Amino acid sequence: MSSRFLSTSSKVIQTLMKAVRVEAFGGPQVLQVKEVPIPKPVDTQVLLKIKSVGVNPVETYIRAGAYANKPSLPFTPGKDCAGVIESVGSEVTQVKPGDRVFTGKAITGAYAEYAIVDASDVYNLSSSLTFQQGAALAVPYLTAYRGLFHKGGAKPGQTVLVHGASGGVGIAAVQLAKIHGLTVIGTAGTDKGTECVKRAGADYVFNHREADYLKKIVEVTGGVGPNLVFENAAHINLGKDLEILAPAGRVVVVGSRGPIEVNPRDTMRNESSVVGVMLFRATKDELAESHAAIQAGMKAGWLQPIVGKEFPLAEAAAAHEDIINGQGAIGKLVLNV
Amino acid sequence: MSSRFLSTSSKVIQTLMKAVRVEAFGGPQVLQVKEVPIPKPVDTQVLLKIKSVGVNPVETYIRAGAYANKPSLPFTPGKDCAGVIESVGSEVTQVKPGDRVFTGKAITGAYAEYAIVDASDVYNLSSSLTFQQGAALAVPYLTAYRGLFHKGGAKPGQTVLVHGASGGVGIAAVQLAKIHGLTVIGTAGTDKGTECVKRAGADYVFNHREADYLKKIVEVTGGVGPNLVFENAAHINLGKDLEILAPAGRVVVVGSRGPIEVNPRDTMRNESSVVGVMLFRATKDELAESHAAIQAGMKAGWLQPIVGKEFPLAEAAAAHEDIINGQGAIGKLVLNV
Repeated sequence: MSSRFLSTSSKVIQTLMKAVRVEAFGGPQVLQVKEVPIPKPVDTQVLLKIKSVGVNPVETYIRAGAYANKPSLPFTPGKDCAGVIESVGSEVTQVKPGDRVFTGKAITGAYAEYAIVDASDVYNLSSSLTFQQGAALAVPYLTAYRGLFHKGGAKPGQTVLVHGASGGVGIAAVQLAKIHGLTVIGTAGTDKGTECVKRAGADYVFNHREADYLKKIVEVTGGVGPNLVFENAAHINLGKDLEILAPAGRVVVVGSRGPIEVNPRDTMRNESSVVGVMLFRATKDELAESHAAIQAGMKAGWLQPIVGKEFPLAEAAAAHEDIINGQGAIGKLVLNV
Repeated sequence: MSSRFLSTSSKVIQTLMKAVRVEAFGGPQVLQVKEVPIPKPVDTQVLLKIKSVGVNPVETYIRAGAYANKPSLPFTPGKDCAGVIESVGSEVTQVKPGDRVFTGKAITGAYAEYAIVDASDVYNLSSSLTFQQGAALAVPYLTAYRGLFHKGGAKPGQTVLVHGASGGVGIAAVQLAKIHGLTVIGTAGTDKGTECVKRAGADYVFNHREADYLKKIVEVTGGVGPNLVFENAAHINLGKDLEILAPAGRVVVVGSRGPIEVNPRDTMRNESSVVGVMLFRATKDELAESHAAIQAGMKAGWLQPIVGKEFPLAEAAAAHEDIINGQGAIGKLVLNV
């Protein structure tokens, strides 16, 4: 194997980095750490030295080849990461080497020691947050903001049920809804999960593995039902969601892993609706709005990603196994570099 | 049986009328014609002499006792009818005896020779339309308007699939969408049904009993799919609708008779949505807007209800059998009085 370092007179320059590479679609075992050249930023790009990587469920679908837009092989997975600017392209003026930043758009992949990012896609990471928390910002908070406000029409005074609230996106939805004046009901599947959702700020927390939890949810809404369901597992919950919604209620579908039977008449009775959420369909203006909310939340202090399990980069396969088949999330899963 | 007429000196006054009465919830056979007193309009009410009655599927669910809001027994079914004002209450100024009108809110039931209606709920019936066409106006056109515009966000230049377009509501949706500048695709289940949908003004018509009709629908949209599906049979079509919608597409659920399996991920991919439609949830302002569109359509001439089967009032049971179990609608089903 070639040396990772190039020696020129007295200076030693690192030329190779560790990166997770997928050479064929398949199970978690296809996530292999390799040595590849450190990419060079040109024009409006920056090179980010990654400290922590956010793992999102979508990356398991992409890895398995089960996603609509497949990347070309081989590739490095991941989009979310936080770190320090290492170097910048010739046209970059808004950030400089040494800046602490996060991004949700690592062009060359986030499961690596370094990544190329366009300077317009890196955002200030408040000094009050760790790099692990920074890795939990982009996809989770942007998705939560889009689901609640751009697609779900969440309004102060309404009640939202965050169905599956203990993972990265769920925690983000709880915090965003709470600070915007909604009453927040969250669910999780374990005691540690429900504790985590309570810590995130939910007004009511229920264990969705208990038989009568939906009845309890309707009770705490005074029998009316939630105005909005932020649904992370539509393949399990959509049919029941439609039964408990308040009149003119909405379900935003943020996650789903299979088909489910529903009764369309449940949408008619209350003129309720079901809306799908897909972050990559956000417009530039919508993303700018969402990022402004994130910056405001970091500054004010209410935005506090909860980090759960942490794996080293070399154990990306174990992280993928855990996020899909684990007992239920308790905070954001990250890879430390 | 008592005489239907009361003789006072030289004048003969009719005091009884024929009305369909439901004395117990059940099958079509519970629709029995009885003689009951002609009601008297008071205050802001009018007495309408009914010429033709619109039969809507919802009345079969109410009759069967399968509807959320059950009326008290016994009752006379129906809300939609057209006829002539017979007499008016003391506070009525906007209409007078002899006026040709239609309504969707017969207080005492529309399956009868006479009905009480609030004067604010009767609307001018253009002399260019028959009473049978008048009976096809209220629920069908108000529901179609609500589905397309208040709930479906239909816009000129978009494409709408009216799924099941040969019945009263479907024909209304085709005409309203067409005049508002949408491209209209309609379906029906028989050759006579597809002819009827073409006559209503659809740009493309397909038989939904043919195996490849959805493929053809996608083809005529240039591979993009419809922006909106106006769905009269969600229990059959909802899953496939979500597969063929254009990005940010909507399904408005106007009719459904049972559960169906869907893949919630289909809503995520395109950020599409499903919205239920229930006419009684319309606000006063929304109804005023919809009625203004109906009056404008009658005046301009593009609004032309297509009347299908006609039954006498005494055969209401056969009409209910036909609207649910018939081979597929071909125009609006009415009862003539």
